[in-house]
Amino acid sequence: MATNVGELALVKIGKAAQKASRKLARSPTATRNQALLNIAEALEGDQQNVLSANQKDYADAQSSGMDLAMLDRLLLTPERLNALAQDVRIIAGLVDPVGEIIESKTLNNGLSLEKRRVPLGVIASIYESRPNVTVDITALCLKSGNACILRGGKESINSNTALTSLIHQAIVPAGISQETVQYIDNPDRTLVNTLLQMKEYISLLIPRGGSGLIKFVAEHATMPVVTGGIGVCHTYIDQTADLKMASDIVFNAKVQRPTVCNALDTVLIHAGIALRCLPLIANRLGEAEVELHCDQRALNILGPEPGVNILPALEEDWGKEFLSLTAAIKLVDSLDDALAHIETYGSGHSDAIITEDQSAANRFLDEVDSCAVYVNASTRFTDGAQFGFGAEVGISTQKFHARGPMGLRELTSYKWLVRGTGQVRA
Amino acid sequence: MATNVGELALVKIGKAAQKASRKLARSPTATRNQALLNIAEALEGDQQNVLSANQKDYADAQSSGMDLAMLDRLLLTPERLNALAQDVRIIAGLVDPVGEIIESKTLNNGLSLEKRRVPLGVIASIYESRPNVTVDITALCLKSGNACILRGGKESINSNTALTSLIHQAIVPAGISQETVQYIDNPDRTLVNTLLQMKEYISLLIPRGGSGLIKFVAEHATMPVVTGGIGVCHTYIDQTADLKMASDIVFNAKVQRPTVCNALDTVLIHAGIALRCLPLIANRLGEAEVELHCDQRALNILGPEPGVNILPALEEDWGKEFLSLTAAIKLVDSLDDALAHIETYGSGHSDAIITEDQSAANRFLDEVDSCAVYVNASTRFTDGAQFGFGAEVGISTQKFHARGPMGLRELTSYKWLVRGTGQVRA
Repeated sequence: MATNVGELALVKIGKAAQKASRKLARSPTATRNQALLNIAEALEGDQQNVLSANQKDYADAQSSGMDLAMLDRLLLTPERLNALAQDVRIIAGLVDPVGEIIESKTLNNGLSLEKRRVPLGVIASIYESRPNVTVDITALCLKSGNACILRGGKESINSNTALTSLIHQAIVPAGISQETVQYIDNPDRTLVNTLLQMKEYISLLIPRGGSGLIKFVAEHATMPVVTGGIGVCHTYIDQTADLKMASDIVFNAKVQRPTVCNALDTVLIHAGIALRCLPLIANRLGEAEVELHCDQRALNILGPEPGVNILPALEEDWGKEFLSLTAAIKLVDSLDDALAHIETYGSGHSDAIITEDQSAANRFLDEVDSCAVYVNASTRFTDGAQFGFGAEVGISTQKFHARGPMGLRELTSYKWLVRGTGQVRA
Repeated sequence: MATNVGELALVKIGKAAQKASRKLARSPTATRNQALLNIAEALEGDQQNVLSANQKDYADAQSSGMDLAMLDRLLLTPERLNALAQDVRIIAGLVDPVGEIIESKTLNNGLSLEKRRVPLGVIASIYESRPNVTVDITALCLKSGNACILRGGKESINSNTALTSLIHQAIVPAGISQETVQYIDNPDRTLVNTLLQMKEYISLLIPRGGSGLIKFVAEHATMPVVTGGIGVCHTYIDQTADLKMASDIVFNAKVQRPTVCNALDTVLIHAGIALRCLPLIANRLGEAEVELHCDQRALNILGPEPGVNILPALEEDWGKEFLSLTAAIKLVDSLDDALAHIETYGSGHSDAIITEDQSAANRFLDEVDSCAVYVNASTRFTDGAQFGFGAEVGISTQKFHARGPMGLRELTSYKWLVRGTGQVRA
């Protein structure tokens, strides 16, 4: 696999991380928490190196013509570092998932079985311009007993190198070796392909960034990937819906934070209530100047002439993640049609039904094959913090290992401990 | 992806299985159990077609010069079909994993959260000559609500086709569509590569067969694979071991069924007790004519002249899965050395320590990174039935999703059901 200097260095990083992971997996909770508190303290107290490095990245990015949104993602400020420190303190305060006894039993032959939670091993993360991911993933991994290999965007290389150095200086005094947190500072892009092949050393890969990165990683990685972050979310307004509740929920799901994966994309409305419901929804979304892409029947109700914020839907609008103040609207003739639409165009993330009909609610919950299915609530709740996990690793839209919001537990595996007194198999 | 007729047919099979899986996932427990009981009844009552087909496969295999062990694996008899029927009845009698509420809670905002167990979707299996795998995987999948795509060896094509036909005739009257169980009867070997790329339709792949097949599948599959079935199992006899217990356990782990993955491969003996322990072990294993591949220090104790069953170990003996009456023996100077040997040569399957020292036992349990770690017991217990899972799907030596023996639960995922009364996110 490794044929050049960069690749060989990467394999060395993989081996070192794996070795460090074995030691970290056995470290006491207090050691890992102390390392996290040290990181938090350094983020608050030793900001100068990181800020200087970030200023260099920022200036370089500015002169290369980076757009304002990306520049903002790249920027670190004293306040942002303090906020980051606070996040790390919160993670330090969470219950340690490592060592939890998930199950225990004694077999008839006297063997005692214990299913004990253990770390996965080495977690790698590939991300884009936001340097705070360096700290975020490190903290989640340290808490869950996993070593990590980090690879940020080249535009934040100085910031990430400074943050990694800060992390190393913080964790070593707590008794955790600096090999536990590895940063790939070689900007060669082909190394990403090498990293994606290193399943011998990496247990899990977490991509963080836009859908392009996530799709690339999901397609090319040989190890398991948390393939979340993409959500085409539907809200279906059933014939029996409370229309006030429906418009409040649709408004919240679309408008409260439109740039995230659990925000609403498509509203499906039962044709039987569309005459009353649709104008209500359109007016409410109009308050936030949401652009509506409507199917023909919806257009017929809202007025045959498309306006500034009301446009005819195109085929590509169904199944589209808008990530902006845009929503697709379609009339359906039945719950069955709504379910069929979601089955065809959904992404398995979060979908909701608004209904007062218990049997319709139950069918929706049973039949929609998404990680989170809702009755009479906003899809915006699909989130580790909202679900009470304390920390959010990501949202998995796959079924293997973990589904939906992932917390610290979802960064672990388990092993079986079997204690006997000489038992042999008959 | 699909470029020829065989590949197109495979994609069609994938789509049909996925569609069927959605329906099966919502089927009542009683429907799936009835389908299993119908299969069992047919296996006992309608044997003629299957036996005739199997006789054809057997005759073809015989005339092509297949060896006796493989011929035996291929053979179906009335007794074997009856035993298979009995296994299916046992699976029918197990608790349904689908629909189990794994966790539930009510958030402060009044949202009710339920984590409900659901099937994975479509499970594919690639296997070799044993036609009983066709029934085994089908039964495990139906019980756990998963559709399946089966691909057996070409030498058992007639048997597998007859069994699939029997299965179809049995499940349809129970209300399960025959698309739920798909058999790939096209013998083109390149189709396996296509199947391994079909992650869009297949949630999990279970290879069953020799290590060549399993390694090939693990390396080339794009979807998750249960990569079990390979075990390099160590038993370390610590300085404080009860030597009678040690020799009983080593004998059992090596001899009781040497051809399986949880059988012993390497015995590590603390040098401090080797003078007393090693001859005892060698004599005991000698009773079953086990061939011992010994390191130099062990040879020095057993007699400097190698004999028929005592040979010098080669480097390749460490980390070798013998699957036969052969064991490697090595002296180590400490628990640390034993742990280091296992870390280097182990396969993460099952490893044991024999000791009366509680702290040595705990270190072994903590530090050996295998799916099952034992104190004072035979590694042969790593098994779904022995662990009380009812059915055995396989033994996973990976950390993601499931580790160790896999039962029906390990063929499932979960979804979050969220019930509200109009909650929106603040």
